[in-house]
Amino acid sequence: MTSPLPPVPAHIQASFDRQSMMQTIGATLIAAGDGACVIRAPILAGMRQQHGAGHAGLAFTLGDTAAGYAALSLYPPDREVMTAEIKINLLSPAIGEMLEARGEVVRAGRRLSVVRAEVWALQGDKRKTIALMQGTMIPVDPA
Amino acid sequence: MTSPLPPVPAHIQASFDRQSMMQTIGATLIAAGDGACVIRAPILAGMRQQHGAGHAGLAFTLGDTAAGYAALSLYPPDREVMTAEIKINLLSPAIGEMLEARGEVVRAGRRLSVVRAEVWALQGDKRKTIALMQGTMIPVDPA
Amino acid sequence: MTSPLPPVPAHIQASFDRQSMMQTIGATLIAAGDGACVIRAPILAGMRQQHGAGHAGLAFTLGDTAAGYAALSLYPPDREVMTAEIKINLLSPAIGEMLEARGEVVRAGRRLSVVRAEVWALQGDKRKTIALMQGTMIPVDPA
Amino acid sequence: MTSPLPPVPAHIQASFDRQSMMQTIGATLIAAGDGACVIRAPILAGMRQQHGAGHAGLAFTLGDTAAGYAALSLYPPDREVMTAEIKINLLSPAIGEMLEARGEVVRAGRRLSVVRAEVWALQGDKRKTIALMQGTMIPVDPA
Repeated sequence: MTSPLPPVPAHIQASFDRQSMMQTIGATLIAAGDGACVIRAPILAGMRQQHGAGHAGLAFTLGDTAAGYAALSLYPPDREVMTAEIKINLLSPAIGEMLEARGEVVRAGRRLSVVRAEVWALQGDKRKTIALMQGTMIPVDPA
Repeated sequence: MTSPLPPVPAHIQASFDRQSMMQTIGATLIAAGDGACVIRAPILAGMRQQHGAGHAGLAFTLGDTAAGYAALSLYPPDREVMTAEIKINLLSPAIGEMLEARGEVVRAGRRLSVVRAEVWALQGDKRKTIALMQGTMIPVDPA
Repeated sequence: MTSPLPPVPAHIQASFDRQSMMQTIGATLIAAGDGACVIRAPILAGMRQQHGAGHAGLAFTLGDTAAGYAALSLYPPDREVMTAEIKINLLSPAIGEMLEARGEVVRAGRRLSVVRAEVWALQGDKRKTIALMQGTMIPVDPA
Repeated sequence: MTSPLPPVPAHIQASFDRQSMMQTIGATLIAAGDGACVIRAPILAGMRQQHGAGHAGLAFTLGDTAAGYAALSLYPPDREVMTAEIKINLLSPAIGEMLEARGEVVRAGRRLSVVRAEVWALQGDKRKTIALMQGTMIPVDPA
């Protein structure tokens, strides 16, 4: 999960920019292409659970979005993808300076793509896995 | 899934109020007790995906939180719960005036509780299921 | 989950009969139609885990198959369905005279159907839930 | 997923041998230890779905068992593990001479372990992924 990723295609960046949720959580699209995608976001003060760690919903949002754009990167630019379903195992509290999610396509198909995502908490030069996800993305016609 | 729920216990309301994420998304804890929990939130302008529907992460956040407090309601007031894992199937786009999530405990155990949640989009007096979730909550000592 | 089910359509019975796995585990198709399906099987001596309870794989096999035929019952008779993905929470050991699985369609769609299943262990006139499942079936053309 | 695995510990082999399901499906425990486990089984004539491919329940059974022994290999020899929950994405029909499942521990914990498994169909010297699994194992006292 450490190979370099190509620059973000314009249609993926544009889609990302239209998601107000990504702005609300302060997310940045780091890389997308070749069936993978990396997104980072800080753990904003308004995104916490009752003990001050990042909310599970934040980790989910990042991982789901990274997995979605990983899948989208393998379809023609005029398609969109939707999450059909996804499962998350939460391994550690989201504590750190930043969260990073990496989505990857395991199997790309005409009708659906199977994806995985890993979410880390970053602190200095250390990273700790906080969530693992596995799910299904489906290509759809643009609305 | 329509039986009346008891008033929200004080320790659950207090935990809910400490979650800054719940304030950010504008969520209200409607009911909690007897292994069930209902939460509502508007689909705020900052919580959308690229086509203007509510983000999958919003539906997840509501359903996961409702499922968590459903589980917590069956443990002693000095415990907390964490999500070990949860799966979401997304059935329809989150379009409407409001989202409502209802979490329910299917099996409460000393070591873990199995939960389900349903999330609806509300529009006028109509409701449409947008997500189904199934997962595992674990009781933990307070931090 | 207790409403009566219609008699099994011929094409579903025929498909069930072609599954050698169903014969190996001694399964009987009790009912199928209107988006639901019930299957029963004994816990044969060759289907156990290390403590003599039914293997998780047996519960999965029954629940997955019941969910699949529940989905198939809502498509035209010339279609087939495949499991795209399914999740199982195991609640209790499979101990009893018989297992019963009931699959149900939550949302039927042209491209995929969201399903749930519950699996019980039956002992005399008692039933105990041993597994809950939630997943996705996709319609396919016959091979 | 290609590093060599240590010889199978005696208590894991003994547990495997007590599972009548493993004998029924003709499974062999290839390796187990250090948080990983490999199991192989033929696709017996009695383990098929309606088109003659291996039943999803067979792939599940192998992957779940491999994931379970992967988890068990990191606990003291007097413990046992149970599957709390597991999710499977089915990628391709189980067609080939043999199935191989490899389970791996992603995070080992005192209360639960997060696991993944991959299942391949083997044909000559080729292997094709047919299923991916992600789940949770819990350590228990022996019955």
